Amino acid sequence: MNMTSDEPSSDFMFDKKILQGLDLSKYGISFKESERSPTEPESGILIRPLSKHDFDKGYIDVLAQLTSVGEVKKCDFIARFESMKKAGCYYLLVVEDTEADNGRGKIVGAGTLEIEEKFIHSCALRGRVEEVIVDSKYRGRRLGKIILGLITELSKSLKCYKTTLECKVDNIAFYNIFGYEEDPEKFMQRRFRD
Amino acid sequence: MNMTSDEPSSDFMFDKKILQGLDLSKYGISFKESERSPTEPESGILIRPLSKHDFDKGYIDVLAQLTSVGEVKKCDFIARFESMKKAGCYYLLVVEDTEADNGRGKIVGAGTLEIEEKFIHSCALRGRVEEVIVDSKYRGRRLGKIILGLITELSKSLKCYKTTLECKVDNIAFYNIFGYEEDPEKFMQRRFRD
Repeated sequence: MNMTSDEPSSDFMFDKKILQGLDLSKYGISFKESERSPTEPESGILIRPLSKHDFDKGYIDVLAQLTSVGEVKKCDFIARFESMKKAGCYYLLVVEDTEADNGRGKIVGAGTLEIEEKFIHSCALRGRVEEVIVDSKYRGRRLGKIILGLITELSKSLKCYKTTLECKVDNIAFYNIFGYEEDPEKFMQRRFRD
Repeated sequence: MNMTSDEPSSDFMFDKKILQGLDLSKYGISFKESERSPTEPESGILIRPLSKHDFDKGYIDVLAQLTSVGEVKKCDFIARFESMKKAGCYYLLVVEDTEADNGRGKIVGAGTLEIEEKFIHSCALRGRVEEVIVDSKYRGRRLGKIILGLITELSKSLKCYKTTLECKVDNIAFYNIFGYEEDPEKFMQRRFRD
């Protein structure tokens, strides 16, 4: 047992049980040792829902490897965490190295699934993949693949009619592994600020 | 006064007051008569939040001009409407011809703004434009432009750091009017069902 497992379930963004039993073998992700699984792929590495204690474990620092995070104080983090949890449509995953920082644990990866409600396609749900990042020191250990596999299978199990994302051209092949295909539609944006 | 104006405010997806005062003149959309505005661009034409009574006014039929709507019963519509309203992040606009169907009113256009909560960019909000459609019989009356202008200005007034959308190549010029630019990122999707 580690500190993370002992946190009350209310400290997590969503119920971690829904990550259990998601099968990633169809994406070529399997585990040699019988005690390993997508949510515990290596000894000391956990993939789990974001916790309200993850500000202190460097969650924002990992996001900063992806894009501009600006200034996010702990109170800002807690307020946004509670708001997202209440909304119920945000599935933020993190990768924790539970042995890092002298056993205090450190967030070394992240990925988000958002669920949108629709009227079209028989009142469907749609998934969106956002903010997928693995700490540069932890790359090459297939953690990004496991995050994507979990997000994709989770969106399917939550009954999304489709799941989408935007990615750099260099990453298309990576997303192809998980069944994402380029769509002829163009991604357009209007930016109001950084 | 018409039936729509008399509906209790709780019957609407969001408070229609937030649509008032949004200035579309920067997009070349202005109104000759002093009593006209983006939310009442022509006599008998209202642009307003989706109401729970709009199932009977053909809201789903308009969406069917955009994509597959499958089967949506009135009870499905009401349940999804209430769920989206509770979530608080869905801004569904409709265009109503209040004089159609012998004065009962008919939905002849629609557009959605969704707001996503983020940690990145200083705990930013992000806008998404979805399901923009004008009934084929009502095209050429700049109703689509007004919807897009309202959605874009609303997203800005709600403090989104950016607002995005996916569109067909043929529609890029239309979205350029509202400041949306093609992003080098690729739009990818995985479809699980129709």
